[in-house]
Amino acid sequence: MPRLPLFSRFLRVLALCVLLASGAQAQTDPLPSWNDGAAKQAISAFVTDTTTQGGPKFVPPAERIATFDQDGTLWVEHPMYSQVMYILESVPALVKARPELAKVGPFSTVLEILKGDHAAIAKLTPADLEKLAAATLTGMPVEAFQGAVKRWLAEARDPRWKKPYTELTYLPMQEVLKYLRDNGYKTWIVTGGGQDFVRQYAEQVYGIPPEQVVGTASGTKYGYAKDGKPFLTKEAKLLLNNNNAGKPEGIHLMIGRRPMMAVGNSTGDQQMLEYTKAGDGARLSMLVLHDDATREYAYGPAQGLPATTVGAFTQALYDEAQKKGWTVISMKKDWKKIFSFE
Amino acid sequence: MPRLPLFSRFLRVLALCVLLASGAQAQTDPLPSWNDGAAKQAISAFVTDTTTQGGPKFVPPAERIATFDQDGTLWVEHPMYSQVMYILESVPALVKARPELAKVGPFSTVLEILKGDHAAIAKLTPADLEKLAAATLTGMPVEAFQGAVKRWLAEARDPRWKKPYTELTYLPMQEVLKYLRDNGYKTWIVTGGGQDFVRQYAEQVYGIPPEQVVGTASGTKYGYAKDGKPFLTKEAKLLLNNNNAGKPEGIHLMIGRRPMMAVGNSTGDQQMLEYTKAGDGARLSMLVLHDDATREYAYGPAQGLPATTVGAFTQALYDEAQKKGWTVISMKKDWKKIFSFE
Repeated sequence: MPRLPLFSRFLRVLALCVLLASGAQAQTDPLPSWNDGAAKQAISAFVTDTTTQGGPKFVPPAERIATFDQDGTLWVEHPMYSQVMYILESVPALVKARPELAKVGPFSTVLEILKGDHAAIAKLTPADLEKLAAATLTGMPVEAFQGAVKRWLAEARDPRWKKPYTELTYLPMQEVLKYLRDNGYKTWIVTGGGQDFVRQYAEQVYGIPPEQVVGTASGTKYGYAKDGKPFLTKEAKLLLNNNNAGKPEGIHLMIGRRPMMAVGNSTGDQQMLEYTKAGDGARLSMLVLHDDATREYAYGPAQGLPATTVGAFTQALYDEAQKKGWTVISMKKDWKKIFSFE
Repeated sequence: MPRLPLFSRFLRVLALCVLLASGAQAQTDPLPSWNDGAAKQAISAFVTDTTTQGGPKFVPPAERIATFDQDGTLWVEHPMYSQVMYILESVPALVKARPELAKVGPFSTVLEILKGDHAAIAKLTPADLEKLAAATLTGMPVEAFQGAVKRWLAEARDPRWKKPYTELTYLPMQEVLKYLRDNGYKTWIVTGGGQDFVRQYAEQVYGIPPEQVVGTASGTKYGYAKDGKPFLTKEAKLLLNNNNAGKPEGIHLMIGRRPMMAVGNSTGDQQMLEYTKAGDGARLSMLVLHDDATREYAYGPAQGLPATTVGAFTQALYDEAQKKGWTVISMKKDWKKIFSFE
């Protein structure tokens, strides 16, 4: 035995390395922020079933597609979508460039809101919002818009936590994204929000590259600058309204395959969830229920708050989930921790 | 020394394994079907430059996007795009289902063509082709279309080589796709052809998944079957005309980043090539010149044949390539082998 002390030590180190590399992952809970329960179990079973080679529900890696709504599913959407905040907070710069807008509605109304008259928000009609969106999201070169969004994201703060919006992601969902990717899944965001807007932070915040963000999209127009350099201008022409039936339609356009798994939190996600669940084999559709008024917010039919303009989780949607076998995620009961900064 | 024969042998085997794993790849030519020359050199230099960590032209893996036109760039487009053949050859089944079409133009003209009257092709106007495309590519569930394309691909034969279209891919381009992917690039098809059509073979033929195919796309409509199952129907509404300026616009919609490298072969690719080349850092734009009448076809300004309805490689495009620093690939001079079956 003392003949080979170096070799024997080498072997022991090697064995330890192999153990660390292969064993550690299997023994560590990939979803530590989830309480044990039906939701966590559904996720684990789905991943195990679809990745067990030779099993009856095995899914080849190329077909492992999982789609996630963004606002209210991956991060906070209350009291207002972050993109709506971007639109409102972009108005002062717009008025500075075009002072004649200061006295014209809906721009004048927005200036009142930003001065502190929060009740004035109620004055904004859907047509007003469309006009504001067109003025702040289109008409500029693609790169100019990207730069403006990045600057805003760095400065803007959520009114309750006083933190950048990009820090208000749900830790348990981040764990699900990582768990899926570690098991060969491609993770996609399928959002009613603006595709070009969400693409500015999805990679940094969720590890989801721009090409895996499907959102409401306007067209662009190709043209040339004075020096002959080509560039794209964002146009007000709507190509894809990525809400409701627009979600499966957008998934077909951008992905071309039916997802194996989908997660949403509102009526805007209903068609994506039913389309996903209607596929063959193992399919997992999940709904995030905002029922934690203390740690986040409670809204929707099961809670005291009425459905707001955002994130409508209606009683009908809840009933649909029961009927179709979608798994409801209770933020209160299923999530040990909601934010990483808790 | 004889004290540790086992350990020493172990070390030698280990060293050999490391050599095999890291060295073999570097020593094998990743582009064996390319003759040495400016084109091959441009590809190798581009890949080396953009993947050399710490080098001045290094590109992070997430930004490694390469886009390829399909017809005439990755496979044969002469004498007719395969998708046009699909449209024409789908007419008999259409007429069988709706016999009243047999005597109505342009369906009656197509029946004549298929009976052998090839001159009748000249009678088809662009409006006729649009009508034929709408009738054969839209109006059915997405899955029904996918099934029909797959059946056609299995049966259809190219008129010259009598082989399935899916075997008429250019071996040197297959090598480029693989070489790029082995170096962390995501390879995309950006085609003027139908997105849903090309997606039916891109994965099997090129290893390019459906979500990495950008093509001319019509909308779909979400609805429910009698049993309540949701499905998507292909609509005649054009969402994206992925030709000319439509290519960079489609790239922005579907990828959201400017490619580092792009390859095309006709005026329909011009804007994609200039958009790619106009980006910062190392960018490679390439044009495939069909100048081999013996092994494939010769068409375009440098050849005897006039520009056909397909694959218009004009003198103006050639001049543009010289001016903008795009690399022209001569099929005759740069490619040792064109097809894998040669």
